[in-house]
Amino acid sequence: MPKIVDHEARRAELAEAMWRVVYRDGAAAATVRSIATEAGWSPGALRHYFTTQTELLAFAMEHVVAKATRRFYAGDWTGPVREVVQRMLEEVLPLDQQRVREMEVWLLLAARSPTDPVARARIAEADDGVRRATELAVVTLADAGLVAADRDVPSETARLHALVDGLALHALLHPDVMPPDRVRATLAHHLDDLLRPAG
Amino acid sequence: MPKIVDHEARRAELAEAMWRVVYRDGAAAATVRSIATEAGWSPGALRHYFTTQTELLAFAMEHVVAKATRRFYAGDWTGPVREVVQRMLEEVLPLDQQRVREMEVWLLLAARSPTDPVARARIAEADDGVRRATELAVVTLADAGLVAADRDVPSETARLHALVDGLALHALLHPDVMPPDRVRATLAHHLDDLLRPAG
Repeated sequence: MPKIVDHEARRAELAEAMWRVVYRDGAAAATVRSIATEAGWSPGALRHYFTTQTELLAFAMEHVVAKATRRFYAGDWTGPVREVVQRMLEEVLPLDQQRVREMEVWLLLAARSPTDPVARARIAEADDGVRRATELAVVTLADAGLVAADRDVPSETARLHALVDGLALHALLHPDVMPPDRVRATLAHHLDDLLRPAG
Repeated sequence: MPKIVDHEARRAELAEAMWRVVYRDGAAAATVRSIATEAGWSPGALRHYFTTQTELLAFAMEHVVAKATRRFYAGDWTGPVREVVQRMLEEVLPLDQQRVREMEVWLLLAARSPTDPVARARIAEADDGVRRATELAVVTLADAGLVAADRDVPSETARLHALVDGLALHALLHPDVMPPDRVRATLAHHLDDLLRPAG
């Protein structure tokens, strides 16, 4: 199916152009016009692939989620369990400029998701990836005997997932009160609590 | 200063019209045109007060934050301390349709805040209100002897604030996995942990 392969390659090329613009100029700068210019296409040619900014953001998000998922599963997760789990979770937090930009795109899509099914589907996919990472973190700690026996894995996963997303939001919106070191320390403090019996 | 008073009254009238539209039709429906129609004004007259949708959303947010703050401080916070604190925190979570709509407006503004100073100022104000509510929750529990002596109030406030905002986000974006009952249970479970020594 050479035509389909070509179509996919062209879409990937556009996603890469979009991310170059986002990393350089910020998420708000990603418009159909600016991405067309970056890719060396006419806006009309780009509109053959994406007709709205939401579709553009959704495809760029899909591209980043796929890359992050591959990187996550190919990662070197050897070492002391507690340190490995901390690193796994830091991977999904906006602790450097690149991931801050990715989260800005996430936030633009999330804001559209109550009314836009395309945005909603991509947000669900991205958030499911983070939920699975937090679940893996809790299960890994539990398997290593680092979670108190009476703690419930699904409850602790839901709580850790909320904490991780809240920290991500504060790191993005209020970096003055939640700089990277404080994000890491708050996460470490939370993992400490999992060691203690729930009641 | 009768002119200023009148100006403020007109702005409050517009904020009320905006919230009627948001509660009825959703946050995305709040445009300069739809708010003008709801208020019985011409779009031109409305543009005398607000020139962009961000300014409109920011003013509506300010209005809701002021109302929520008054309600919070006038609230009946009597009863067993632990129950009171749970109720205080539930007050800032999107557990009914009205607060879901308010959070949709918050999310639209938050998505604009990395590039828009007007949005950023309103988000900072709204988020500071939630941070103060979580601080009051931790201090109230600590004063009642319901927080382990070795726990650090600023750290626990930062963690509780992240948890509350993460839960709010999941309640809004993924109500299927985080319905109101699960939000309340996760919050209650987190407060239980504060009773136990940190290390």
